[in-house]
Amino acid sequence: MDQVNQNSYCIIMAGGIGNRFWPVSNRRNPKQFSDILHTGKSFIRQTYERIAAIFPADRIYIVTGEEYEACTREQIPELPADNILKEPYGRNTATCIAYAAYKINGNNPEALMLIIPSDHFISNDLAYLQDLQEGMEFVKKQGGLLTVGITPTRAETEYGYIQMKNRNNSQKITAVKTFTEKPNPELAKAFYDSKEFLWNTGIFIWKTRDIIREFKTHMFDLHALFNTDCKLNTPDETAFIHNVYGQCHNISIDVGIMEKSQNVYVLKGQFGWSDVGTWHAFHALCEKDGEGNVTHSDKILLNESRNCIVHVPEDKYVIVQGVDDLIIAEKDNYLMVCHRKDENKIKHFEKSFRKP
Amino acid sequence: MDQVNQNSYCIIMAGGIGNRFWPVSNRRNPKQFSDILHTGKSFIRQTYERIAAIFPADRIYIVTGEEYEACTREQIPELPADNILKEPYGRNTATCIAYAAYKINGNNPEALMLIIPSDHFISNDLAYLQDLQEGMEFVKKQGGLLTVGITPTRAETEYGYIQMKNRNNSQKITAVKTFTEKPNPELAKAFYDSKEFLWNTGIFIWKTRDIIREFKTHMFDLHALFNTDCKLNTPDETAFIHNVYGQCHNISIDVGIMEKSQNVYVLKGQFGWSDVGTWHAFHALCEKDGEGNVTHSDKILLNESRNCIVHVPEDKYVIVQGVDDLIIAEKDNYLMVCHRKDENKIKHFEKSFRKP
Repeated sequence: MDQVNQNSYCIIMAGGIGNRFWPVSNRRNPKQFSDILHTGKSFIRQTYERIAAIFPADRIYIVTGEEYEACTREQIPELPADNILKEPYGRNTATCIAYAAYKINGNNPEALMLIIPSDHFISNDLAYLQDLQEGMEFVKKQGGLLTVGITPTRAETEYGYIQMKNRNNSQKITAVKTFTEKPNPELAKAFYDSKEFLWNTGIFIWKTRDIIREFKTHMFDLHALFNTDCKLNTPDETAFIHNVYGQCHNISIDVGIMEKSQNVYVLKGQFGWSDVGTWHAFHALCEKDGEGNVTHSDKILLNESRNCIVHVPEDKYVIVQGVDDLIIAEKDNYLMVCHRKDENKIKHFEKSFRKP
Repeated sequence: MDQVNQNSYCIIMAGGIGNRFWPVSNRRNPKQFSDILHTGKSFIRQTYERIAAIFPADRIYIVTGEEYEACTREQIPELPADNILKEPYGRNTATCIAYAAYKINGNNPEALMLIIPSDHFISNDLAYLQDLQEGMEFVKKQGGLLTVGITPTRAETEYGYIQMKNRNNSQKITAVKTFTEKPNPELAKAFYDSKEFLWNTGIFIWKTRDIIREFKTHMFDLHALFNTDCKLNTPDETAFIHNVYGQCHNISIDVGIMEKSQNVYVLKGQFGWSDVGTWHAFHALCEKDGEGNVTHSDKILLNESRNCIVHVPEDKYVIVQGVDDLIIAEKDNYLMVCHRKDENKIKHFEKSFRKP
């Protein structure tokens, strides 16, 4: 696999606390630093190793919360310390991407950015890397905002969707008509049936100068915050970032830029992908027993039970008897037993306990 | 409350491992040594304190497994060490009672025994002690085998039943017609409706010489084992007991004696009682929230859930969402999630894990 050229940078987004996976993912130990799939490596470690096949360490950046700096350095000791961009608090992907874009552009106005989430499941790494290189070649030649989509295999309501301008276009990269956030079930089914839509992986490729032009056009407040008396790449960077983050809105790159820009493309990814964003996605991804149950240890016994997920510490013994459709999850002395129909309530559970 | 006379002895039966309460009760820490009801004291400690109001410590005996001697001494330091009768393995109540009867009779042929379980819930201690004293007076005067029954409040299938010879008998103590072990639901309803039946509490009162005569008549093998070359109350008692227990059958006093003897009486107990033998009995006994849930800590939250039991270590945080009729129980790194309809399977769960 060829290395990327010297103007290419990779940004790994590692904000977020994965609260839809509570209690296994929580504020102290978010999903991206966890090994929820029991592979032996955390999501972020796997993401780093995958991308390090084509990027040198000094051109990989990780954007994460200040409080996760130690954890990031521990899990990825190869990364130069300066390549961890620390957010004082989460302000969603538009802010996160702006931070990286303005900083890198300050050092290299010819820069091209590949932005990838830290906590997704990818299968077929070779196809993944080939797709990304193809995408970077495309952007290098003709600019624009390139996203990576995945052909849907079900009417999933937990993913964002990207509509292609021409679904019969046989080209791998096509222009984008619309972006849609998580649809309701009817809409998801219509999207799936139409074959015009791809799942939005949250992977983006563009030149820093192009995304900065888009910020200037569609999110001028944010542009002004980063562009006025800019202290990025100086000893005052931390104070500058605290000030900027204190003033900017919580807004996603999809809503802030992608839905508005006229210059958006999507590449049809050929790799296997899941955002592993919910227990439902986790269940869909994992190997199941004959009754549809997902577990990870022979210390877990399920009797006359169906379609359950049991995710507990490795040394725990569990018997589940006579139940269907339960998520049973434990971590750090927190236990959750939740019917799968109520999965959308899990994200609120962490708040139920005041700082224990 | 008067003390009992010098010929009266109390035997607390503390064998059994309470496997219908797994994992909260288990082989290493059986129910009788646990504080399942969160009262601050174990069942056996409460049983001891209750009976110590009328018995001196040197005439209280506890029969339990060899492996629970240390636990018994720790929980009841007042008890003379020699008053712990150690069984090499459980051989049911007939054997347990025979051990105590032959041993005490060897020291005092005029002895009268009160036999009580170690792991039952009793309310109204005063009524309980008055009933027991009344029963002991009865037996002292006219001999016979006296049991204590409780007027049923529901058609419970998990209790044994005692049929009175004459239900219109206004006397507190009446002759017994039949003993029945746990009935099926139809039979339990017929028993309950007839008003001729009382619940069998497993409390017995008799003179040692009378129960020995009954053993000789109805369980001659067992009598021969204890009566031949008897080494009870000698330095060879332990070896003798190992030999006896190695040869005797697993049989309850109800089946071995009570169902056969022609000289059985029952006293209608006036106290509150539950054998707390199952999670169902536990649920019936405990205070419930508006949705019928039983918990014991404000660290346990139940949302949109009904008729559940949650019993976990005191420091554990739990959220239960959108489920009905579950038993969620944890102890010593063992977790059980069991639908209440399958409660009768719990007793087999401990065997599911080979010595972890």
